[in-house]
Amino acid sequence: MMIQSLRWTGGVDGCLEIIDQRKLPDELVKLQCTDVRQLYDAIKTLAVRGAPAIGVAAAYGLVLSMQESRAQEDLATALASLNENCMYLSGVRPTAVNLSGALQRVRAGAEEFVRQRPGAGAGEFREFVLEQANTIFQEDAAMCRRIGENGWQLVTEGVGILTHCNAGALATAGQGTALSVLYEAHNRGRQFKVYACESRPLLQGARLTAWELQQAGIDVTVICDDMAAYLMKQGRVDMVITGADRIAANGDTANKIGTYGLSILAARHKLDFYVAAPTSTFDLSIKSGQEIPIEERPAQEIQFCGDKRIITEGVEVWNPAFDVTNAEDITAIITDKGIIKKPNAEKIAAHLRCKV
Amino acid sequence: MMIQSLRWTGGVDGCLEIIDQRKLPDELVKLQCTDVRQLYDAIKTLAVRGAPAIGVAAAYGLVLSMQESRAQEDLATALASLNENCMYLSGVRPTAVNLSGALQRVRAGAEEFVRQRPGAGAGEFREFVLEQANTIFQEDAAMCRRIGENGWQLVTEGVGILTHCNAGALATAGQGTALSVLYEAHNRGRQFKVYACESRPLLQGARLTAWELQQAGIDVTVICDDMAAYLMKQGRVDMVITGADRIAANGDTANKIGTYGLSILAARHKLDFYVAAPTSTFDLSIKSGQEIPIEERPAQEIQFCGDKRIITEGVEVWNPAFDVTNAEDITAIITDKGIIKKPNAEKIAAHLRCKV
Repeated sequence: MMIQSLRWTGGVDGCLEIIDQRKLPDELVKLQCTDVRQLYDAIKTLAVRGAPAIGVAAAYGLVLSMQESRAQEDLATALASLNENCMYLSGVRPTAVNLSGALQRVRAGAEEFVRQRPGAGAGEFREFVLEQANTIFQEDAAMCRRIGENGWQLVTEGVGILTHCNAGALATAGQGTALSVLYEAHNRGRQFKVYACESRPLLQGARLTAWELQQAGIDVTVICDDMAAYLMKQGRVDMVITGADRIAANGDTANKIGTYGLSILAARHKLDFYVAAPTSTFDLSIKSGQEIPIEERPAQEIQFCGDKRIITEGVEVWNPAFDVTNAEDITAIITDKGIIKKPNAEKIAAHLRCKV
Repeated sequence: MMIQSLRWTGGVDGCLEIIDQRKLPDELVKLQCTDVRQLYDAIKTLAVRGAPAIGVAAAYGLVLSMQESRAQEDLATALASLNENCMYLSGVRPTAVNLSGALQRVRAGAEEFVRQRPGAGAGEFREFVLEQANTIFQEDAAMCRRIGENGWQLVTEGVGILTHCNAGALATAGQGTALSVLYEAHNRGRQFKVYACESRPLLQGARLTAWELQQAGIDVTVICDDMAAYLMKQGRVDMVITGADRIAANGDTANKIGTYGLSILAARHKLDFYVAAPTSTFDLSIKSGQEIPIEERPAQEIQFCGDKRIITEGVEVWNPAFDVTNAEDITAIITDKGIIKKPNAEKIAAHLRCKV
């Protein structure tokens, strides 16, 4: 039974139930998000995280925002309110394109709804917004499964696999991106060993990926991030697979800080380096990774371990949450549509155009 | 005023006072080691750490072992006891050669003493062992200073420098190895910026290096280990400098886990990669890094942050404490005798032979 990171319960007046990932693996606590500000905070503080999951969560955030009285007055007011809330939610985290992508999609749909049905009531409009969010949810889950189906054969028998951060069920509405590939291989009886980088500072690899894979019965060993190179030198891994937060038109890929370094280490050790992501992670509006905004997060995430300060006061800290891997260091990108080997602008454009 | 990581107090019946590095930077606590088993534990649990410092500490450990009644009986019994304690202490940590080097040196001196002065008493013998330990202490401090004097000009004005783990005063009897270079540059008025990798799992960079450099008034910023590659990509650092735990005849260098990865990242970004170490860190008895034993430490160091478990039970962990950097990726090794550029077996042999 796959973990469900988030789930809408009830109709237009319902709420979004999310697994509070800040508490894992200690406690499996579900958080009921009943208004849009609460959801904003849940995304900001990483109660819900992972590029696809925050896109889906934000879409439901718009449904929550429609529960407020002003949005229920008339169609024009409802649309204005929805637009404001799109702006509000799109600013919560800057790097993953899935967030703004999902919000823009709901907004475009809403504008189309208003154009086509100017006489509709605010209630019907809210129903429409919920349907849109549900569609994004279902599509994300379906894309996750297809990523796994498209990529599982890359996991050959007995292989060692290194992954970073968490690109699993917890990061999506479905069975993950990078980990979906592993789940599908596991379901088909492939034997393999996974190494999970702990992924400092917030330890998504140690806390979330190890927990998720253990639940699924997949053999997983946690290492500190600074052990990855030596692991490779020892011949313990054959491939690296990660998720992505935004992929530029040329294939440059923003993902959790540390991914760029792993891509260089993989190249040096002649290992395959795979990125697994739904097509919603591509951002063709930008040419290369240099244009991707990189979120810097609070210093406290590094300064403290739990309540304990580990760095003396007055010492500076730098805390970028993402980095950008060069397309040339990526062996292939696995998407819901197939596999893009040695990605570049032409191949990516063709891949995204094709109907599968 | 430089930090003094360890200090012998009193005569042959004295004790070894060490800064308890497990408690830094929270508390500056000094630990009085009064017997050899206590010192063994202090080294094992990293209360005292750093290749040169554990060599010096172990030499004093032999003095402590001579305080036991059996070692005070007669010369032959004293020598036998010393030999046993050499064996005991040399097993506490396997990777740093300075430990076995210091012990062997005291033992060889002791055997020579017994050959030359067969009629001496156990009391004179103990005085001799203390003198030997004091000599190793003083030589280490002097070598540290010379490393700094030999290397400081590599720190050009305005440069950004990345370091890993702690190769400072806390790791030696003197002013450190890698950090000695920075201290000497700082003392001569050079302006530069240091980035310290936090160095998981035990955070020697975050806890110790940041604290040490702050005490000295040097600008230091802590990053997580998985941020080093992105830091380099952004052009924020020009060079990497680390210490060493053992350098093979061909220049392959064992150092804190993570160093090997940094050397590859530095090569990719065309940055200089320096190793700073006293000549006592070379082990010409082994040809290459493949022969260096790598200590694996307890899983709990990764599984827990303080008292808090971060990895769910039943998940495996791999915790090597060191890795080996290839000589080809080292721009130069800075020693107390000078600088070995592009180190290889011939250059190293010649360097160690020369009298300075």
